[in-house]
Amino acid sequence: MSAMATTAWERIQPRLTELMDLRNALSLIGWDEHVMMPPKGAEARARVTATLSSHYHSRISDPDLGEILADLREDNGLDDVQRAVVRVAAREYDRATKIPRKLVSALAETSSRAFAVWQEAKEASDFSMFEPHLREVVKLKKEEADALGWENERYDAVIDYWEPESKTAEVEAVFAELMPELAPVAAAVLDAAGPRPSFLSVNPPAAKQLAFCRWIVEQLGFDLQAGRLDETAHPFSIGIARGDTRQTIWRNPSSLVDTILSAMHESGHALYDQNFPEEWADYPIADAPSVGFHESQSRLWENHIGRSLPFIEFILPQLKEFFGDDLGMMTADDYHRAANHAERTLIRVRADEVTYNLHIGLRFELELELFRDALDVADLPDAWDAGMEKHLGIRPGLHAEGVLQDMHWSTAYFGYFSTYTLGTLYAAAFAEKIDNDLPGLDDEIRKGDFSRMLGWLRENIHHQGWKYPAKELVRRILDTDISPQPFLAHIKERYSELYNLDL
Amino acid sequence: MSAMATTAWERIQPRLTELMDLRNALSLIGWDEHVMMPPKGAEARARVTATLSSHYHSRISDPDLGEILADLREDNGLDDVQRAVVRVAAREYDRATKIPRKLVSALAETSSRAFAVWQEAKEASDFSMFEPHLREVVKLKKEEADALGWENERYDAVIDYWEPESKTAEVEAVFAELMPELAPVAAAVLDAAGPRPSFLSVNPPAAKQLAFCRWIVEQLGFDLQAGRLDETAHPFSIGIARGDTRQTIWRNPSSLVDTILSAMHESGHALYDQNFPEEWADYPIADAPSVGFHESQSRLWENHIGRSLPFIEFILPQLKEFFGDDLGMMTADDYHRAANHAERTLIRVRADEVTYNLHIGLRFELELELFRDALDVADLPDAWDAGMEKHLGIRPGLHAEGVLQDMHWSTAYFGYFSTYTLGTLYAAAFAEKIDNDLPGLDDEIRKGDFSRMLGWLRENIHHQGWKYPAKELVRRILDTDISPQPFLAHIKERYSELYNLDL
Repeated sequence: MSAMATTAWERIQPRLTELMDLRNALSLIGWDEHVMMPPKGAEARARVTATLSSHYHSRISDPDLGEILADLREDNGLDDVQRAVVRVAAREYDRATKIPRKLVSALAETSSRAFAVWQEAKEASDFSMFEPHLREVVKLKKEEADALGWENERYDAVIDYWEPESKTAEVEAVFAELMPELAPVAAAVLDAAGPRPSFLSVNPPAAKQLAFCRWIVEQLGFDLQAGRLDETAHPFSIGIARGDTRQTIWRNPSSLVDTILSAMHESGHALYDQNFPEEWADYPIADAPSVGFHESQSRLWENHIGRSLPFIEFILPQLKEFFGDDLGMMTADDYHRAANHAERTLIRVRADEVTYNLHIGLRFELELELFRDALDVADLPDAWDAGMEKHLGIRPGLHAEGVLQDMHWSTAYFGYFSTYTLGTLYAAAFAEKIDNDLPGLDDEIRKGDFSRMLGWLRENIHHQGWKYPAKELVRRILDTDISPQPFLAHIKERYSELYNLDL
Repeated sequence: MSAMATTAWERIQPRLTELMDLRNALSLIGWDEHVMMPPKGAEARARVTATLSSHYHSRISDPDLGEILADLREDNGLDDVQRAVVRVAAREYDRATKIPRKLVSALAETSSRAFAVWQEAKEASDFSMFEPHLREVVKLKKEEADALGWENERYDAVIDYWEPESKTAEVEAVFAELMPELAPVAAAVLDAAGPRPSFLSVNPPAAKQLAFCRWIVEQLGFDLQAGRLDETAHPFSIGIARGDTRQTIWRNPSSLVDTILSAMHESGHALYDQNFPEEWADYPIADAPSVGFHESQSRLWENHIGRSLPFIEFILPQLKEFFGDDLGMMTADDYHRAANHAERTLIRVRADEVTYNLHIGLRFELELELFRDALDVADLPDAWDAGMEKHLGIRPGLHAEGVLQDMHWSTAYFGYFSTYTLGTLYAAAFAEKIDNDLPGLDDEIRKGDFSRMLGWLRENIHHQGWKYPAKELVRRILDTDISPQPFLAHIKERYSELYNLDL
């Protein structure tokens, strides 16, 4: 390591520490806002968050930091981890300095107003109320993309925020392969699915369900001495700091199965956050390489474990012991059918594992058209309805159940939807690899032993953090690029068996 | 208002807002640490707190703020509230700039280590382990007092932190009047007290006790939409922000009475924090004028309401309805006796309303001698034991039950103990005044109607915030200076009745 490089690395360390501390404070404040804050505290909280965010921004965009990063980018004496830290820190510095403060404020204000109007518009099922606000959000997001810069097309800059270093063309290719192959499978599954099974449509006392979920997540390997599990209307997981990862569940009052799946999903995120390398605690690479990658962990635990027969055979006797008479008669097959019931629905968040990605494909297509200036915001509702008819064979009667159903666009979360599908595809590919690498895993899961599975994830995924970009990490794990095929194979296998089909 | 003054006032406003936001963030982070944080999050949390505190310190000690304050101190065009804001902000600026950063760090490090050693020393009941650390804390507190400056004696600077603008001589005069009059009363009460009554020595399920306490605090007027009530090992109350005041209770497993009194005590603090004038939310005068003043509110609700017969007559039927068979047979007199049982004890936190202030008087005397260089740290244990014998007629057999019982000194909380007694004396004086101002209040309390009482407190105390120093506010409320007489009269009346004495 050269003398200059050592100096620059030493100079960046206290800055990384300070940035991490401010980020951790903001994470905690955000968690509290959603889980603990009394309603009348909202106004003061919004200001505290803005003040701390502004402190954070002034530190991450500090010109002195820029100079240190420039020195470090030139330095050939750094090791792999140091280079990764510089790559990720520089990425954030660039973002903070390239987007004008005025545009940041305009986006924050516009999307905050757009979100409020979206709530009313959804209530009234009237897209025309929302249209001017959404138009403004799209316009500002385009300006932001231009400020950040892009090579092939503007949407690259939109997607890059969530899936760093991914290109539109790559994601488009994935959907182009997925959608036509998934459509006939979904059609066959939906035709074969009977009415919704009512097994487990029970709602024991909240405290008891929470206690049960805490027990489950501990079985998976989540350390409750280094985290929490609480209840919220919208479940989420957040890494507050090293040794402090918090997840929440949503208790579905009409389905204990959903509540348990919610805990499985969030545990996927939470186990990831809890297992980044300890020695990286102050580095921005103690993170997933992309939002889709983070989602791969939640989908893996929810879909490939939580909805699988071996897991159900483990959990069912425990459930019966815990909730007793609340559950009535029930077999593992009953539970399995309830957890995997497929159903044609207009609403994404109610969709099953099969049709879910058709909902996402539609949103991805529409976003692309908006950012390629091929679709006007005013024409979104018609495009939405036509897309639903094309991909899912049903047509919304109301804007509230169509183009207005999701909050994402109102809050400027463009480019986000596709990470759900990327996460699902990553998950299926990892699950396939795990099955190959760990023979006999099903028997362990049947006994409630998740240690080898968690060990595999730690080694191959958690401990890698953001050392490599998502694409490169996938290649290191799978020896190939991401593809929809493992997911399609998984769906075909699961539903062939469940509904006695030949998919 | 002169042009210059207007400008200076306009310049200070965004700074006050930012300081308040940072303070609120630190309050929330502290609350979370004690109520929610998983144990393994402690290390990262300590650093986040230090980083934010350092941001706060650099803002409150900013020389530009000093200049603005200097302009404002000169300005005759400010109104009462503005002048008070400047007085309180300047006080904090002076403190932050007068104490050298090196001394701040030394105190933080030394007291953090002293606290850890104190825990071990108390466990081992061995003062000699603690002695060198306490000696260092005292030495640094003296240096701090000298850095801050003082007029009459060094201890003035120590006491001023908790009781702004109070002087040692004044507090000493209060204790000099209180102690000799209280001693014979306490002796008579203790002689008359029989064995501890076992009424209400029950421990219903935690969740049920918490629910009942939430119900009680709402009856008093605490707004749970603008606050929370949780459970901790050490109960406390904290104002996180406007619209967000949080209290905790300690659930005594062997006394439901104590649990309820804990909720009454913290509600006193919490109602205060919840009722500072809304328009002052960003000003540092949205606070009590002193720690003792804050304590007056907790002692008022705990001692003068929570331990009184009218309140007990209100609460008892509610308790019986809520907890049913857990309580068994019980009359209001039984409850009254349990809530006011007097007992000779070595331990301050277990002391009753009568003897409590004798424990405090001893600590005050010892602190004075330490800061007047009339007592060496090495001689503290003997001085303690002798003082206990003198004031309470019992002698500790162990350091753990004597000089090592409280954590305060280890954490450099010198000057704090006397605020407990000042709070108690304020409370009794306010209670006397309320009785005079609000005839018929007992009947209202018997019906669970606290609205007139809370209204009085709002108008006379809560809404005054820190507009005036404590001494001045007392005079405005009572038309006289603080004195131990109302407290002595209250104790004599209560125990004459309870134990059939002629005090």
